[in-house]
Amino acid sequence: MAALATLDGVMAPWARRAEARPALELADSCLRGVGQVVFMNNPVTGLLILAGLTLASVWLGVATAIGVVAATLAARVLAFDRTAIRGGLYGFNGALVGAGLATFLVPAFDVESIVAVVVVAAFSTVVTATLSRLLVPTLGVPGLTLPFNLATLAFLAAAAGGEGFAPVVEPALPAAGEGVDGALRSQEDGGAAAAVPALANALLRGVGQVFLADSAVAGLLVLAGMAVCSRIAAGFALVGSLVGLLVAVALGGDGFAAYHGLWGYNSVLCAVAIGGVFFVLDRRSAVLAVLCAAAGAVLFAAVGTFLSPVGLPGFTLAFCLATLAFLLIKDAGPGVQAVSLAEITTPERHRRVRHVPGVAPGRDALGVER
Amino acid sequence: MAALATLDGVMAPWARRAEARPALELADSCLRGVGQVVFMNNPVTGLLILAGLTLASVWLGVATAIGVVAATLAARVLAFDRTAIRGGLYGFNGALVGAGLATFLVPAFDVESIVAVVVVAAFSTVVTATLSRLLVPTLGVPGLTLPFNLATLAFLAAAAGGEGFAPVVEPALPAAGEGVDGALRSQEDGGAAAAVPALANALLRGVGQVFLADSAVAGLLVLAGMAVCSRIAAGFALVGSLVGLLVAVALGGDGFAAYHGLWGYNSVLCAVAIGGVFFVLDRRSAVLAVLCAAAGAVLFAAVGTFLSPVGLPGFTLAFCLATLAFLLIKDAGPGVQAVSLAEITTPERHRRVRHVPGVAPGRDALGVER
Amino acid sequence: MAALATLDGVMAPWARRAEARPALELADSCLRGVGQVVFMNNPVTGLLILAGLTLASVWLGVATAIGVVAATLAARVLAFDRTAIRGGLYGFNGALVGAGLATFLVPAFDVESIVAVVVVAAFSTVVTATLSRLLVPTLGVPGLTLPFNLATLAFLAAAAGGEGFAPVVEPALPAAGEGVDGALRSQEDGGAAAAVPALANALLRGVGQVFLADSAVAGLLVLAGMAVCSRIAAGFALVGSLVGLLVAVALGGDGFAAYHGLWGYNSVLCAVAIGGVFFVLDRRSAVLAVLCAAAGAVLFAAVGTFLSPVGLPGFTLAFCLATLAFLLIKDAGPGVQAVSLAEITTPERHRRVRHVPGVAPGRDALGVER
Repeated sequence: MAALATLDGVMAPWARRAEARPALELADSCLRGVGQVVFMNNPVTGLLILAGLTLASVWLGVATAIGVVAATLAARVLAFDRTAIRGGLYGFNGALVGAGLATFLVPAFDVESIVAVVVVAAFSTVVTATLSRLLVPTLGVPGLTLPFNLATLAFLAAAAGGEGFAPVVEPALPAAGEGVDGALRSQEDGGAAAAVPALANALLRGVGQVFLADSAVAGLLVLAGMAVCSRIAAGFALVGSLVGLLVAVALGGDGFAAYHGLWGYNSVLCAVAIGGVFFVLDRRSAVLAVLCAAAGAVLFAAVGTFLSPVGLPGFTLAFCLATLAFLLIKDAGPGVQAVSLAEITTPERHRRVRHVPGVAPGRDALGVER
Repeated sequence: MAALATLDGVMAPWARRAEARPALELADSCLRGVGQVVFMNNPVTGLLILAGLTLASVWLGVATAIGVVAATLAARVLAFDRTAIRGGLYGFNGALVGAGLATFLVPAFDVESIVAVVVVAAFSTVVTATLSRLLVPTLGVPGLTLPFNLATLAFLAAAAGGEGFAPVVEPALPAAGEGVDGALRSQEDGGAAAAVPALANALLRGVGQVFLADSAVAGLLVLAGMAVCSRIAAGFALVGSLVGLLVAVALGGDGFAAYHGLWGYNSVLCAVAIGGVFFVLDRRSAVLAVLCAAAGAVLFAAVGTFLSPVGLPGFTLAFCLATLAFLLIKDAGPGVQAVSLAEITTPERHRRVRHVPGVAPGRDALGVER
Repeated sequence: MAALATLDGVMAPWARRAEARPALELADSCLRGVGQVVFMNNPVTGLLILAGLTLASVWLGVATAIGVVAATLAARVLAFDRTAIRGGLYGFNGALVGAGLATFLVPAFDVESIVAVVVVAAFSTVVTATLSRLLVPTLGVPGLTLPFNLATLAFLAAAAGGEGFAPVVEPALPAAGEGVDGALRSQEDGGAAAAVPALANALLRGVGQVFLADSAVAGLLVLAGMAVCSRIAAGFALVGSLVGLLVAVALGGDGFAAYHGLWGYNSVLCAVAIGGVFFVLDRRSAVLAVLCAAAGAVLFAAVGTFLSPVGLPGFTLAFCLATLAFLLIKDAGPGVQAVSLAEITTPERHRRVRHVPGVAPGRDALGVER
């Protein structure tokens, strides 16, 4: 019980201990980077996620690890803000670059592919710095996963015309398919009992697809990793995945894509971001989280339509667009309490601090309460 | 005569009387919302426009009405600025959402289509708030009809891939066609006399197409409605439609599209916006209005080319781009007098107030002079 | 030797003499406008470049001249900042409009094409003013060649659907082709000796393609013109062209396109901009210049992929995107010294001034040292 409590939240005491050894500090920063993809500043979250990805595909797990290390080291070489590096904020875009290129570059474990992951992940660190400078002072919003999206899409679009990489720019997913209802019901031959597994599968794959892992087991490990750091976040991840599925049903989206979690992953990120991370969780922000998740799913389909002529994947652009739009109304809505970017820790901690008005929290290098 | 004077301008005394009854206040706000599509804060304008749309197509009129009500109610639920709601500023994007989806979703009067209008129109209200927060404090420019464009295009793009709505994403207009000269002259078999009706038809349809009404009668009623509130605005609407037609001739655009007003509607909005609404009308702003209308027509064709691979319509994106560009030079041009966003009423009133330097106008909730 | 020294830098004494005669002043402003495409505020640079373009194609040279005159005169009519006009800052986008339309509008020396060059070049001046107002006060970055790109792409996209201009919107370059290595080696039948000419050809064409001149001689004259004003800039132009070629090899890009300098021209502009113009040249900014040139080449290919469905050329959008991104990190990197926009002269002069800390340079109308 005491051991579990040690893992909760951002694990600040462990962070300080890890800093005694350079290699351990780097590993800690990188694992937090993997966790920060889902806004979790926690190395155990990152470890469980990497385990899930590796179970889904060894190359996916390895490429994600290479990406996060390359991006984090690039931030160190460029002497960017140490607190941000330690909290994984320069690593998560690199982790996604690794996952994204692992999915769209063939063959696996190719030297050229590995070089591409390293270069594009390191470049995502530069884009992260640029976007922060562009967005934070003017609008008070973060760049989210835009650096990953911009860097990876630019690379894939550039490589698409060449002979050096030959990315799979037509997403490997079949375009044909039946409606959502049909596909989810296709396992139901034996009766209604099978609908529950099919639904569970779609929901969990939606969480796994945040890391481009088309696997319910990976989704389960991502959820478990998130729960170590924040139960609220894990809960909203599931809520988001469900909202994405419902939007797919409403729009009559492709059932095959829905079953494989593609309608869900943007909504997962939207729901977690709005439902406790950037806004203090209360009834109003919970409603906004659901609305943002719905907007994320609609934009997923819209981005797909706009990118279809060039055959590139939409990655998490829909999440970025929907969440930035919802974050920008933070000064408008009476009662929605925005968490200042420098004070973000976990949804649970945001609720505790904000419910004792007048007490400003102390912060250390990892933004954790003292 | 006195009765006509009562209808002129923003009709502030009537607005106050309408507020005695909640239903009447809502109707007044919504009709002003319809009028605000062409920058007219006047319920009679809105009424005449709705009549014109209904004459062109009952479904078009009804969907526009549903859209403006949904958007206005959403702004009330979200407790947005009451003055802006009363002046129709949260309604006009919703009205266009209704008109846009009525045109691109089939079949008419379908329950699903109605639900789509309500949801997308309400969402346009959120986008309106977001864009205002983004553009007004930083650049001092309004979001114009961008919320309509973004929300409707996102929805249509998302629905295009699914089976739930099956929008007509290939615009219903024939791509083939002869040059502008030929099409306008095609009714001329009997001689030059027929050229005038053909031109009048194209000009009026250009005004009607602001509301996606491909009808000269609708265009006439839109013009009449505008004239109730502002003769200057109605005049510039015609000027804009003419400029759009001339650009179509210059670029050798499709004559069929030109006859049906498609080259005109963006230019109509550009000319009205610059020629008296956002700038005080004088010789210089009149020239800018014509140039902006020309830019709007060029951008109409350019947007069409860029959207052609996905088959989506360009709606009023060209108007937004051209007008925002011209508004941004407001601090540059010596002699152009920009009207501050909070003080916008009618082109006539702007001229009267600005020509008595040193006298700051009093303003009430509808921004009307006291 | 003294004569050569007179031509060096921004030629301020000559500028003052030229102002004695209106026609000479206009010619001086326009020639500086041609030079400013490659950041050189020097009329002799402009003269040599125009000579090079005319050697490559008379129509290219004439259209470029028409464009720069139209844009410069438009800025005068609109009473824009005289210092900026004199330094060619309102002319360079117009020069590129001329070069761009000369390449993509057929036939040459057509009256309609000339009218198009005049109108679009004049319009680029308005866009230049708008973008400056948008970017300089908020982000402290210039609009670069964005006005050229936006105005020309909008016009070509609008004209693409019509019958009035019929631009060659499918770039005239063959899509098929062998890898870079193969194409560069194709002249090598006689042995390795021929590889050097092929490489030199590709490098020089990369410089020429900045002005859409597919000619090694034109590239040589552009380089010579740059060297008159700044040897550093000329050197980095070659470095950029080489980096673009290397990226083409790395991505396995089309060898035909690489031989004709298409992978190089964006990188040429990136390298010159970062390597001495906007940042004071030192070891760190030299590294950034190479990285920015590489990013420019990757984005060249990426922009090409995104524009391929509509068949429009990417012009120098890749240069704009890459360079703006690198300029935005100017406050982040310790040790990189950004030159304030109002103080830009030549890379050589920036180094001299900055190496005497505490001495603020005096400036006259052309930004030259006194």
